[in-house]
Amino acid sequence: MTQFTLTLHCPERSGIVHAVTTFLVSNGCDIVEHQQFDDDVHGELFLRTEFTCAGPATVDDLTREFDLVARDYAMRYRFSDRTPDRLLVMVSKAGHCLNDLLFRWRAGALGAEIALVASNHEDLRPMAEAAGLPFVHIPVTPETKAEAEQRLLDLVREHDIDLVVLARYMQVLSDELCQKLQGRAINIHHSFLPGFKGAKPYAQAYDRGVKYVGATAHYVTPELDEGPIIEQEVQRVDHTHSPRALATVGRDAEALALSRAVRWHCERRVLLNGNRTVVFR
Amino acid sequence: MTQFTLTLHCPERSGIVHAVTTFLVSNGCDIVEHQQFDDDVHGELFLRTEFTCAGPATVDDLTREFDLVARDYAMRYRFSDRTPDRLLVMVSKAGHCLNDLLFRWRAGALGAEIALVASNHEDLRPMAEAAGLPFVHIPVTPETKAEAEQRLLDLVREHDIDLVVLARYMQVLSDELCQKLQGRAINIHHSFLPGFKGAKPYAQAYDRGVKYVGATAHYVTPELDEGPIIEQEVQRVDHTHSPRALATVGRDAEALALSRAVRWHCERRVLLNGNRTVVFR
Amino acid sequence: MTQFTLTLHCPERSGIVHAVTTFLVSNGCDIVEHQQFDDDVHGELFLRTEFTCAGPATVDDLTREFDLVARDYAMRYRFSDRTPDRLLVMVSKAGHCLNDLLFRWRAGALGAEIALVASNHEDLRPMAEAAGLPFVHIPVTPETKAEAEQRLLDLVREHDIDLVVLARYMQVLSDELCQKLQGRAINIHHSFLPGFKGAKPYAQAYDRGVKYVGATAHYVTPELDEGPIIEQEVQRVDHTHSPRALATVGRDAEALALSRAVRWHCERRVLLNGNRTVVFR
Amino acid sequence: MTQFTLTLHCPERSGIVHAVTTFLVSNGCDIVEHQQFDDDVHGELFLRTEFTCAGPATVDDLTREFDLVARDYAMRYRFSDRTPDRLLVMVSKAGHCLNDLLFRWRAGALGAEIALVASNHEDLRPMAEAAGLPFVHIPVTPETKAEAEQRLLDLVREHDIDLVVLARYMQVLSDELCQKLQGRAINIHHSFLPGFKGAKPYAQAYDRGVKYVGATAHYVTPELDEGPIIEQEVQRVDHTHSPRALATVGRDAEALALSRAVRWHCERRVLLNGNRTVVFR
Repeated sequence: MTQFTLTLHCPERSGIVHAVTTFLVSNGCDIVEHQQFDDDVHGELFLRTEFTCAGPATVDDLTREFDLVARDYAMRYRFSDRTPDRLLVMVSKAGHCLNDLLFRWRAGALGAEIALVASNHEDLRPMAEAAGLPFVHIPVTPETKAEAEQRLLDLVREHDIDLVVLARYMQVLSDELCQKLQGRAINIHHSFLPGFKGAKPYAQAYDRGVKYVGATAHYVTPELDEGPIIEQEVQRVDHTHSPRALATVGRDAEALALSRAVRWHCERRVLLNGNRTVVFR
Repeated sequence: MTQFTLTLHCPERSGIVHAVTTFLVSNGCDIVEHQQFDDDVHGELFLRTEFTCAGPATVDDLTREFDLVARDYAMRYRFSDRTPDRLLVMVSKAGHCLNDLLFRWRAGALGAEIALVASNHEDLRPMAEAAGLPFVHIPVTPETKAEAEQRLLDLVREHDIDLVVLARYMQVLSDELCQKLQGRAINIHHSFLPGFKGAKPYAQAYDRGVKYVGATAHYVTPELDEGPIIEQEVQRVDHTHSPRALATVGRDAEALALSRAVRWHCERRVLLNGNRTVVFR
Repeated sequence: MTQFTLTLHCPERSGIVHAVTTFLVSNGCDIVEHQQFDDDVHGELFLRTEFTCAGPATVDDLTREFDLVARDYAMRYRFSDRTPDRLLVMVSKAGHCLNDLLFRWRAGALGAEIALVASNHEDLRPMAEAAGLPFVHIPVTPETKAEAEQRLLDLVREHDIDLVVLARYMQVLSDELCQKLQGRAINIHHSFLPGFKGAKPYAQAYDRGVKYVGATAHYVTPELDEGPIIEQEVQRVDHTHSPRALATVGRDAEALALSRAVRWHCERRVLLNGNRTVVFR
Repeated sequence: MTQFTLTLHCPERSGIVHAVTTFLVSNGCDIVEHQQFDDDVHGELFLRTEFTCAGPATVDDLTREFDLVARDYAMRYRFSDRTPDRLLVMVSKAGHCLNDLLFRWRAGALGAEIALVASNHEDLRPMAEAAGLPFVHIPVTPETKAEAEQRLLDLVREHDIDLVVLARYMQVLSDELCQKLQGRAINIHHSFLPGFKGAKPYAQAYDRGVKYVGATAHYVTPELDEGPIIEQEVQRVDHTHSPRALATVGRDAEALALSRAVRWHCERRVLLNGNRTVVFR
């Protein structure tokens, strides 16, 4: 018995759930988990269904057969089986997010497969290699940036990568690369967006005297730190925290928010809704 | 166009969602919100659907017509329309939960109608009456307890009460009354259950030196503070909090947890699952 | 035996605490609570001491006698006794913060005295008057704004007000008024600053798709929503929250953050440190 | 210039702070951080002071010279310099707390030195050794328990251990060992104490249907899970969490609470107050 996930969205109208369940029942499938969200503001319905199939169905079979239903309702849809997504994790020097992702991956709690680690610095090579992962050093200078980004795209292709995770990768990606990776790259920004975009958010947070620091996991888009938010986490702080202490506290929020966002994405729990996300936890 | 909610649970098997949606579609209904939960541990499915009906349907019509479907799947089910539940709020001397419920009710954010307030003390009469509500004083002594409980049941019947809310009512209800109100009475316990059951939980919390205090909204059952938990809330504390200060901080958690539990119950978002609850937020 | 609070700040150098405690001991005072914070970044020390005096000391006596010590260390300092601060609460139409402040005040948990309520609308008159408070209606139009602000200053003077609390008062104060009230006016902004400044923050939060909404209590300054932050609170939300639902959830954060900020200010727990605050909880 | 910490507690009476600051000033010391707490309930004062000394002072010098002051006030006190505490981390099979402690240690954020890891299982040897740490396997059976505990005490002595950290070590220590390690051993219990003491707390939490799971870091005492609480952390959960999912979520709370408790202990921020703790964060 194989387990699949169907995610879809389409304009709201009556009969959608019935059409989907009729399709599943007539194909001998059994719903295990079902969530839907009607976005009244935009008139759009979002749906996620996990189901088992008795027969020898594949994602391709289901996709082909569902197409007629989908057309009727103008659905954008996707079937997935349980093959774990393959991740390329990009880092720079700070290792807390990588360390956290590696631990969850090895404990079977990430819901994905880390394929390799790449970085513009050598610092985290030992951490990646201790986990048995390939580590690729891609230095980036203003002159080599285009070349470095091409190298990254090559890695994505060669390693059959489903998701690029920017786990405190301190390089701004070019618009072109952002577009190529749209919906397939998640970044952790070390602030509670939309506050403190850009560089040195903890220094900005210190100057503003906030009483919580936060972290935001979001899809990468050409507009810096403006992509759809998947998850946020906050930690209480006070006047005794220096900018450095804020950063230390914030690391916990970053690791928590990023790992949740990655897992939810890989379990097909995150659906894009314009610049917002629907997260079926 | 009328809006209804259907909640149900039944043993897990294939086809349930399809059966429900087929029923709705064939009755000209349109699903607005749909949530389900498959409890693998107990093999039970829980489902909540909000839908609109074009025609002149009533809860009775729907109930009658759904009965055939329900029998097939051994469903326990309930249809509700948008008539707000009527509440009897029971208090003693502490007014923070009553004050909070009254404010939300008048702001249209409680999802229910407060019908009257009853108390074993006179202290909160002004608060109730300022809100334009009847206030019934039911003194309780060991001798008059049975009589007082009968009075409460009379009020439930006379005022057509759907839900009794124990908003810091400091009397232990008899087993008999608990049974009569089963599933129709919510209590706020001023601790994070299962810690600190019974009397003076904040004094107990102080003695134990906990770093959070909490509050628990739960259905009333004959076993004191053992009923199914609907909602909990916590607040951070530290060594500087005296038992009295813990109580002051805890009041915020109590009011928040209780009002959420009441609203979710009245919106049919809470389904009983043995001694646990399924809460479709 | 009278209880006093001394708050001060001065450039960091050795001997400050000793100088203060020597003064207190030699005046027959006994320290009850003592906190200090050394701001290494700015080289400034902040200190709060609560103490009892055996004799018939007054704030004026202590202030006069302490002056020599203060000069030596270039201290800015203030003695307070336990006379509660008098509050003028400004509101518009939304009553959740006023309701919360009134309840805490009457429960003896606000640490201050509410003297009167003023508003540019009549809506909350019943709530204020039910609490036995004077309610002053000060309509504001572009033409009468200057006059209305003068009226507010008159009320501050006539009622001997220590602190103006903008409890969802939906008028922007003029720069001049902000300056006159500097350090004596606290506003609750209905977002987690610095995100979503200005109008309609919940609509902004909805558009950005944040996963927490928040509230910020801050001192009023001429720069809109840029004043020193005293307290913030957050509440978890998700994609199902409409702008209106975000606002409803956010109200709880607003009431909690504002009442804490007011209490801490009135207990002399908040010291200004440039555009940041030191909060000795 | 050397930095020291003085922690002390003594019966409340006037002049304590002055006595301490007079001592420090007369020894050429400069206070950097100062916190105190007056426990009115028990009539005891707790104090923590960090200070720098210009001269060549040592902990022994200060201890000797302070003794006269201490006697006057019946103080229990301790001076510490900045030599980091040495930790023995005890684990069984679950590695999340060890992984977290190791990362913080290597990032310089633990405030202590991990000297070695010991375990009743071999599973985490690779993790310890990848961090360059000795790993000692001490199998425990009912027959060898006494011997194993002696081995642990030997390790404490041989490696000059200041603190034993039970980082999900799944063996109950004997009363005798608990007494020998009193105040020098911290355990992480995987529940929000006092709820769910003993074995399988997540299964208990599932059965009770709680809406938060938590973790509690506490000093080890002969009474199982009854020692003084240093820190607690909670995570929101709901009906969809199986016992296994609760455990996965809870791991984040465990790692956060334990690492904070260890750091605060090693920075001398935790003072015992009967079965409660004073934590000067």
